[in-house]
Parts: sequence; structure tokens; C-alpha cells
Amino acid sequence: MNPTDTTQIAILLYDRFTALDVVGPYEMLCRLPGAETVFVAERPGPVANDRGDLVLVADKAFGQVPAPGIVLVPGGPGQTAQMRNTALLDWLRAADAASTWTTSVCTGSLLLGAAGLLKGRRATSHWLALDALAAYGAEPTGERVVMDGKFVTAAGVSAGIDMGLTLVGRIAGDEHAQAVQLAVEYDPRPPYDAGAPWKAPAAVVENLRAGSRFLQG
Amino acid sequence: MNPTDTTQIAILLYDRFTALDVVGPYEMLCRLPGAETVFVAERPGPVANDRGDLVLVADKAFGQVPAPGIVLVPGGPGQTAQMRNTALLDWLRAADAASTWTTSVCTGSLLLGAAGLLKGRRATSHWLALDALAAYGAEPTGERVVMDGKFVTAAGVSAGIDMGLTLVGRIAGDEHAQAVQLAVEYDPRPPYDAGAPWKAPAAVVENLRAGSRFLQG
Repeated sequence: MNPTDTTQIAILLYDRFTALDVVGPYEMLCRLPGAETVFVAERPGPVANDRGDLVLVADKAFGQVPAPGIVLVPGGPGQTAQMRNTALLDWLRAADAASTWTTSVCTGSLLLGAAGLLKGRRATSHWLALDALAAYGAEPTGERVVMDGKFVTAAGVSAGIDMGLTLVGRIAGDEHAQAVQLAVEYDPRPPYDAGAPWKAPAAVVENLRAGSRFLQG
Repeated sequence: MNPTDTTQIAILLYDRFTALDVVGPYEMLCRLPGAETVFVAERPGPVANDRGDLVLVADKAFGQVPAPGIVLVPGGPGQTAQMRNTALLDWLRAADAASTWTTSVCTGSLLLGAAGLLKGRRATSHWLALDALAAYGAEPTGERVVMDGKFVTAAGVSAGIDMGLTLVGRIAGDEHAQAVQLAVEYDPRPPYDAGAPWKAPAAVVENLRAGSRFLQG
């Protein structure tokens, strides 16, 4: 990549998105040389997250971002309602037709699927939503970050950080990505080892499958 | 903790904060039972991050949040200017006098230091800022998350996730924290192992010490 090039990174917002799905990869991708990020929604203005207490501001409406270089689709409880939003799905198809990379975090991949973009593609999602991908012709895989051609999908919420850093490396090279990792001191040390369903205590997994109002991502 | 209790979590915003410093711990702490988060700034309204392209909305002014249970102070390039903001430092002192836990991410610990809150305390910060803590009477330590009494400080940017999850465990117990970890699928797999200065290639470390306009967190 020529360091004088500008890459427009379009980050989708919609009512009840999950904040870390957006900000995790944002904090990596915004450090690409020439990155220009734009938050895009059906209408510009404030957009509330899945708890209604965190508000990000969308800069542009769909029609104002016709040809981004990178598309980022977050997940969140609001994804379900957006599966029937033709304005959003139409924009995803148009943006993807122009993009070099189309990416998602968590249940954002279901929106890519609903837009018809993941047919025959390997893809991932939140562990609780993974099986739903198959209905859209995708091949679900439990990997944390899945690259299939131009499509890069991440598992639940925090996996967007690994996705973003992986994509930075693919675009700008390993040394640049390592510099990004060091700049944000991404040397994770979770105090527990319960971040995947095969690692967490069985009772914790079952409680989440049953649904807990405090915890759903 | 009685699950019917409400804990107000006050998250400080200021011009040129780093977004992941805020949203990483937010996504953990908001899942505490009874959590009520409030974004607080000198004035309510939109606050732009360190790149000027991500805008979070502050709900309340300092005077409207006099006694939070948990205080979270993010870092970011804007921290330098805030070191002389008496309104902010006064609020930090008042909020800390009321709080059960006072926390920071990245260079947010320097704001706690400037408010006089870290005297004689072990604390951490971004690896590039760690030495500056000593000027405020703190004992700098390179650990990723440092708990000293009610003060919980995290290293650079992404370390706020580990800090938030650690604090969730301390407040609500290991099983609840494991459920939070699984809900956000926090099973990190960085594609490189360059997230600390003693792990990254020497050239990468030196470039960051010299300052790179793309990368500074």
C-alpha cells in the first residue's frame, strides 16, 4: 500500500449495537497509514448502544458513503431488527461491491449473511449465534478470526480487536501491525480462562445459553 | 454485593481521550449486577476522541455526578491539557472521596496523580508514560493491572479490558466475571506477540519512543 493513499473505513452504527464490537477494531484500523474513518448509519446523529447508555455519533447517512475501502459491521442485540432493514442491507451490498475488505464482528456477520454476501464463504460469529450463519449459505467455523477472500469475520465482541490487528498486518505489513499492537499495549492477560464455551465452567455456559439479562452481548 | 443494589459507574470523558480506554472497561463493568453507567464531562454533550473522528456523548456535567460508586478515568493525548484543568481535578478528588473504587486506564493514572490521589500508591500507566507517575508520589510498576486499596490502574489502552474484568470479579465474584468473559468471548489471540516493549522488535519500540503520528495511543 502506498502510504500516501487514503483508505476510507466505513463503520456501521445502528440502534442497540455493542460498543466494543465497534471500538475494538476501530482502535486498530484507525492506525492504518492513510486511514480515514467514518461512522455511518441510516441517519446521521446519535446512536445508542445495546444498553442505551453509551451513545456514538454517526457522521454520515448511507447514501453519503457509497464506496468505502473497508466496511466494518458490528454486532449486538439490535442486529435482529436490522435483518429486515432494506436500506441497511442495500447499503451493505453497495458498499461491499466497492470495498477492498468487508468485515464484521460478532453477530454483524449475520447482517452480511442477510445481505447475501457470505454465500459459500467460511465465516464466524458470536458462539451463541454461530449456527445461524448456515441459513445464509455460509460455512460457520469456530475460529476467532476468519478470512475468506475479502471477507473477514470475527467471533464475539472482543474478537474484533484480533480481527482489526490481523487486517492491519495484512494491509500494512507485520512491522506496522506490531507497532499498533505495542502502541495500544495489546498484551492481554485475562484474569480467568473462560472466554470460550469449551473453556468456561459448564454452569456459566448453560446460564448464558438460557439468557441472562446482565450478560448478553 | 446485594444484587438489588445500584452501583453508579462514572466514566470520565475529555477532549482527545482514547476510545478503547473507555469502551474496553465499559463493556466489562456495565455487566456488573445493578450497574448504572454515566458518561461525565466538564459539559454534557459530544466529546471527540484523540483522532477527532469518534464522538461519544457525555450525559452529565461534573456537578451532576457527585458521588459515584466507581470512577473510571481514561487516558489519551488530551490528558496532558487536563493536568491543569482544576474543574476536572476537583471533580476527581470529590468523586474519589465518595467512591468505592477509583480506576484508570493508560495515562488516566497521571490525572489521578495530578489530583493527588496516588501518593504512596503502587500504580501503572502506558509503558511510555510509566516513569512520569513518580512525580506524583506514586510507585510505578510495569504490571498490566495494579490494585492498591481502592485504586485500580491499568497499563496502556487495551489493558482496561483486563482491569475491568478483574474488578468485576472482585466485586461480583469469579463466576459472574467468567460469565462476562464468555459473554464477550474474551479469549484473546493476538496475531503477533509484540504488545509489550520487552516483546516487540527493537526497531518497533524505538520508532514508538521517537513518536509516530499514526500510532500514538
